[in-house]
Amino acid sequence: MKLCFSIILCLSFLTIFGQVQSESDKDAFFIREIYNKTLTEGKSYDWLMYLTKRIGGRLSGSPGAAAAVEYTRQIMQELDMDSVWLQPCMVPHWVRGEKEECRMISSRLGTVDLACLALGNSIGTGPKGVSAEVVEVMGLDEAEKLGKQGKLKGKIVFYNRRFDQTQINTMAAYGGAVDQRVNGPTMAAKYGAVGALVRSMTNKTDNVPHTGVTYYRDGNECPAVALSTMAADELERALEMEKVRVFFKTNCKNLPKKLSYNVIGEIRGSEKPDEIILVGGHLDSWDVGTGAHDDGAGCVHSLEVIHILNHMGYKPKRTLRCVMYMNEENGMEGANTYRDVSNEKGEYHMAAIESDRGGFTPRGFTADGHDDIFNEKFRKVIAWLPLLEPYGLNLRKGGSGADVGKLKSQKGLLFGFEPDSQRYFDYHHTPADAPDVVNKRELELGAAAIATLVYLLDKYGLDE
Amino acid sequence: MKLCFSIILCLSFLTIFGQVQSESDKDAFFIREIYNKTLTEGKSYDWLMYLTKRIGGRLSGSPGAAAAVEYTRQIMQELDMDSVWLQPCMVPHWVRGEKEECRMISSRLGTVDLACLALGNSIGTGPKGVSAEVVEVMGLDEAEKLGKQGKLKGKIVFYNRRFDQTQINTMAAYGGAVDQRVNGPTMAAKYGAVGALVRSMTNKTDNVPHTGVTYYRDGNECPAVALSTMAADELERALEMEKVRVFFKTNCKNLPKKLSYNVIGEIRGSEKPDEIILVGGHLDSWDVGTGAHDDGAGCVHSLEVIHILNHMGYKPKRTLRCVMYMNEENGMEGANTYRDVSNEKGEYHMAAIESDRGGFTPRGFTADGHDDIFNEKFRKVIAWLPLLEPYGLNLRKGGSGADVGKLKSQKGLLFGFEPDSQRYFDYHHTPADAPDVVNKRELELGAAAIATLVYLLDKYGLDE
Repeated sequence: MKLCFSIILCLSFLTIFGQVQSESDKDAFFIREIYNKTLTEGKSYDWLMYLTKRIGGRLSGSPGAAAAVEYTRQIMQELDMDSVWLQPCMVPHWVRGEKEECRMISSRLGTVDLACLALGNSIGTGPKGVSAEVVEVMGLDEAEKLGKQGKLKGKIVFYNRRFDQTQINTMAAYGGAVDQRVNGPTMAAKYGAVGALVRSMTNKTDNVPHTGVTYYRDGNECPAVALSTMAADELERALEMEKVRVFFKTNCKNLPKKLSYNVIGEIRGSEKPDEIILVGGHLDSWDVGTGAHDDGAGCVHSLEVIHILNHMGYKPKRTLRCVMYMNEENGMEGANTYRDVSNEKGEYHMAAIESDRGGFTPRGFTADGHDDIFNEKFRKVIAWLPLLEPYGLNLRKGGSGADVGKLKSQKGLLFGFEPDSQRYFDYHHTPADAPDVVNKRELELGAAAIATLVYLLDKYGLDE
Repeated sequence: MKLCFSIILCLSFLTIFGQVQSESDKDAFFIREIYNKTLTEGKSYDWLMYLTKRIGGRLSGSPGAAAAVEYTRQIMQELDMDSVWLQPCMVPHWVRGEKEECRMISSRLGTVDLACLALGNSIGTGPKGVSAEVVEVMGLDEAEKLGKQGKLKGKIVFYNRRFDQTQINTMAAYGGAVDQRVNGPTMAAKYGAVGALVRSMTNKTDNVPHTGVTYYRDGNECPAVALSTMAADELERALEMEKVRVFFKTNCKNLPKKLSYNVIGEIRGSEKPDEIILVGGHLDSWDVGTGAHDDGAGCVHSLEVIHILNHMGYKPKRTLRCVMYMNEENGMEGANTYRDVSNEKGEYHMAAIESDRGGFTPRGFTADGHDDIFNEKFRKVIAWLPLLEPYGLNLRKGGSGADVGKLKSQKGLLFGFEPDSQRYFDYHHTPADAPDVVNKRELELGAAAIATLVYLLDKYGLDE
């Protein structure tokens, strides 16, 4: 009897073990197929070439943004999704106007041109420009301190804190400096400054200024431009020697809000349609450059996930939703609208993956979520690591993405696709963010990585 | 008594544990400092700019190679190493001559130019060129089979097997195709072919031909060129429709061997000077392009390791040797000489690290070694993984490098630095392998990764 029981136990164990083995083998095989198809029959690169070369810059409210809405809607329709729709949202409509100018005037060096770009959302200077003495600060705290002492009144504030080059992940260096661009100008205005200059957000030393959003609060507005890092260096050196005045002129302005759209496509789940898995990127880009890495790559990654899984005949159990968000760059109105509509409907995004860190070689995913659920759900995902590691993919706790981050209250897991970060800020928000700096295979490997995570999420879920 | 013993045991355990912890903390701190210094005070990028912009191509026997010998010798002397010397070696002296030409002649398409580059070591066609019907093969086996049937006689053999795009690591795709370039022409000649064409070794579809070495054996020689992948595609399509002739003309030739040098610098170990740790790359490059990734990056990585460790005041216990190998590309004479001299002296390279896969973001190291010792020594190295992982570095069994691989009989561990491989074959052996495709931070991270491994090897050894 005892022997008999032991044999039964053994056999059961073998059966279970055999099944586990075989599911894992099946998964490994399916994932290998995802990569094979993406690397040989993927369309992401062609789509990106169209978005960047044919359509170009796609700032919210621009003709390019409208074209991108229509282009990606058409792709989704060709992908034979169950439904494709446009979700209306009102977006800011900021326009740069003619070329900006910036010059420093010092008694020793004379007049020196400084390469600059107006910050997005910034007001313009008007045709006369602004001219004032420069006060250099290393951050918001210093600006506030000087402001309270009345030392910013009538001045141009120069935010000059650099990227920390010792951060291995350049996103961390960005995170450590970007508050100057986002909140610096409004802080300067609050204390009476007439303008703000911000050192460009990049690891590089070159003469290319990097634009990006600034937000005004409580009506505290002054015109603001980014300086190239070389221009910032030059201004810094001049300020070490003497008082310096800067003149700059920008022609940008905020027009009335405009109607635009998130582009959404969906394949309804066959078993658990109420558990949504979202893949997305943002369709808008800055007006300079063509948004190849930021975030054309994320858009075509997301479309490719649908294309490849379809192409492999995969029928999802859960609902797969592909979202091209509008207005991530200067307002988040697409993401706000998507969240509001979704919450009103009582939807549940079991998982949402955003790709908005470029089309470089994948290193993995960062995951985030509501404190109530994060640890438990992340543990399930971590169990898939052996399937991801052959492709150089890791999983770690970290931010997800500006758009999908808004869905945290639904208590699903939020993911940010994490490619190699070293080159991202060489191009970010500049004319250099163009098709020639995207490598086809690196882009495709990103799409395959995201498709792999979607497959595992769909197959195993996070709530069982 | 028992309690007393337990307390002693406990205390001993805590002490040991405390020490272990603290060594690991010390290591983590030191490694963090290596990265900080390399990313803020490194010189590798400046050196690479000089090597590529000022010196340029450095094919063995060329003036550029001689300049590179002198330049890196001077750097080593400035690095205040205990000794710096040139190790003479006789190297092949192949010259390309004037621009090559290649055209296909088909009755349907007429005459179509095909972008080509003579393969290194190839004989030239002479001023009249060669012209013959093309026989397409997918590899050496097929060529040999057709050869034995007498079907290659008087023909031009076209080796057209592609890179396998589904290989995640592009080095594996290269490994799966490069036998055609290295051994294809001599195989064709053996069976009476008058010339050989080889599809370029790249993942990309573009019009840039990739040169690289070919070796003739047993006096079987015919002129050989690489075709760009677009040219190969065009020829392939033409051959699907009809018989096609190709004409090509090359002016290359092999001149008498020339005296050149490996450049070697050494810091003698304070405790175990007979255990050598080598870091190296190869100084020669192809004549087209400026060898920025291949292998300027590996050279400046190796020099930077010495610079940074010196700069941190690190005094190695073991002997650190930095080797700039000559003639990796078309003969391996530098590596052969280095091995012969080292073996004659009875030296022991406890570890040798080669960087010859470009200056891209580090992914880790591959390790190799004599079967007698590999598993045992690799196990020691694997124990350091927790210190490497924060920097995205992995360790795996795999090849080391063409140069250091020659030291296997000394039974040390051989390492190949492994950066991200996706872009390497976009540039490899073409004019595009130039300074603008190297990212400063990616390059510096590579130097820091190698310095980290050198530090751990020096501190802990592999034989204790």
